[in-house]
Amino acid sequence: MRRMDHDPRRPGRRPPRPDAQGAAPAGLPWLHGLHAVAAALANPARRLKRLVLTEEAEAELARRVAPPWRIAAERADKGRFATFLPPDTVHQGAALLAEPLPDLPLDVVLDQAGNGPVLVLDQVTDPRNVGAILRSAAAFGAAAVVMQDRHAPPETGALARAASGALEVVPVVRVVNLARALEVLKREGCWVVGLDGTAPTTLAQAGLQGRRVALVLGAEGEGMRRLTRENCDELARLPISPAMESLNVSAAAAVALYELARG
Amino acid sequence: MRRMDHDPRRPGRRPPRPDAQGAAPAGLPWLHGLHAVAAALANPARRLKRLVLTEEAEAELARRVAPPWRIAAERADKGRFATFLPPDTVHQGAALLAEPLPDLPLDVVLDQAGNGPVLVLDQVTDPRNVGAILRSAAAFGAAAVVMQDRHAPPETGALARAASGALEVVPVVRVVNLARALEVLKREGCWVVGLDGTAPTTLAQAGLQGRRVALVLGAEGEGMRRLTRENCDELARLPISPAMESLNVSAAAAVALYELARG
Repeated sequence: MRRMDHDPRRPGRRPPRPDAQGAAPAGLPWLHGLHAVAAALANPARRLKRLVLTEEAEAELARRVAPPWRIAAERADKGRFATFLPPDTVHQGAALLAEPLPDLPLDVVLDQAGNGPVLVLDQVTDPRNVGAILRSAAAFGAAAVVMQDRHAPPETGALARAASGALEVVPVVRVVNLARALEVLKREGCWVVGLDGTAPTTLAQAGLQGRRVALVLGAEGEGMRRLTRENCDELARLPISPAMESLNVSAAAAVALYELARG
Repeated sequence: MRRMDHDPRRPGRRPPRPDAQGAAPAGLPWLHGLHAVAAALANPARRLKRLVLTEEAEAELARRVAPPWRIAAERADKGRFATFLPPDTVHQGAALLAEPLPDLPLDVVLDQAGNGPVLVLDQVTDPRNVGAILRSAAAFGAAAVVMQDRHAPPETGALARAASGALEVVPVVRVVNLARALEVLKREGCWVVGLDGTAPTTLAQAGLQGRRVALVLGAEGEGMRRLTRENCDELARLPISPAMESLNVSAAAAVALYELARG
C-alpha cells in the first residue's frame, strides 16, 4: 500500500517515508498511541528520534509524563499522521520514532526483574503474535520474554504496534541458543515448564505455586523443538476441548500467564 | 501479491483464482490443514465444492473421517497448493473449498447448543482476531459466538484460517441488532457480563459459578458501545497490571473463556 509521504502544506518538510509495516526507512518503529508513547517517553533506556503530537495529545501526554521531555515535540494535526503511519492506525494524536531497546544478557535481566514468570518462545515468528504475547506478558507481570534471535521477528512497527507499549514494560532477551538459555534459567532457580497439548497434567494441576517458572511455548503446529522439549523440567497442557487441536499461540500464552498469575 | 493460478502440468485444468486473502472468486473460503478439512468434511451442514489432497493427506484424512466422503478428492502434489493458497499457508496437503455455514437464529442455536457460555462481540472487526476468538471459543466449550453483522468480518479465508476448524465446532450467529440479541439472551436465561477494564470486580470474583453467562467483549480501544454496556447485567474486568491498559481482544477472550470454564 502506498501513501503520500509529503504534506503539501509544509513544502520544506518531508516526514520519513514509511513502509507497509509502518516502520521508518532505517527500520526504526514508529510507536503510537498515548500509552505506548508515554511509556517510551518515560523509559530512559529508549533513544528518541522524533515526537509528533496533536495539541490535545500533547496536553494529555504532559499529564502522564511530567515535562520537560528528552525530545522536543513537533505539533501536527490529525491528518498528518496518515502520511507516516499505516491506514486505520489508532494513534490518538501521538507518535514517537525511537530506536529499539538495547539487548541485555539474560542473567542481568533476571537479576533486575521481578519474581514473575519468564516466558520463552521457541520459533514463534509472526510479529503480530509476538506483539500480542509481549502485551499479555506485561499485563500478567512476566519478568522477561526470551526468544531465539534467529527465529524471532525483529522489533518492527508491526511488532511494536501489537505490543502496545509492552516493549517498555517487559524486557525482551534475544539469545543465540535457546537450550543454553534454558540452562541459565535453571541455574537462576527457574522451574522450566513446556506447554504441550499432549501432556497428561494441566498447568493448573502442576502445583507451581511458590515456584519461579520459566514457561516455554513452541510454534503453532510444530510445537517445541525436540531439544527444547528435552530441556524442560516438566510438560503441562491447557485444558481444552478434544474438538480442537490447539489454541492460537498468543491466546495460549495469555491463558497460561493468567493461570500462573492466579497461582 | 499475485501468484500463477495455472498449473502447466495440467493444461486443461484451471484451479479457482484466489485473492490475496486466500478466498476463491465467489468469496468462498478455502479451508486448509488436516484439522479444519476433517472437521468440515464431517460436518453435514457444510456444502462442499472441491477437495484437494496429497496422497499422504488423503490417507491421514481417511483415518480421521471414515470414507466414503460426500465429495471426491482431487489428488495433487504439494507444489500445487501454492497456486490457490496464499504463500506460507500451513495446509498439510489438504484443502477444501466449501460454502459458508448457514445462518441460524439465536434462539434456535441456544436451544440446540450446550450449556457453555455465549460470547458476544461488539464491533470486533479484525478477521484474524475474530478467527482466533472462535478458536478459543471452541476450545473452551462456548455454546455460540454472536456478532453484529454490520460490524463483523465476513467468513473469508483469513477468518477461517485463523479459526482453524472452529467454524465447524462453535455456531456463529450474526445478528442485525446487538441490543436486541442481548434481550434474547436474557430471556433465555443468560446472565450478561460485559468485560470492561474499569469495572471494580474481576471476572473470577463475580461469582458466576452455576450461571449460564453471556460474555460481551468490545472493540479494542473503544470497548463496548454505550447501549451495549447499558444492556449488561454486570461488568467485570480481568486482573491485569496497571502498567498496561488492556490485552489484545483475542487474548482477553481466551483468558475470560478459560476463567468461565474453570468455574
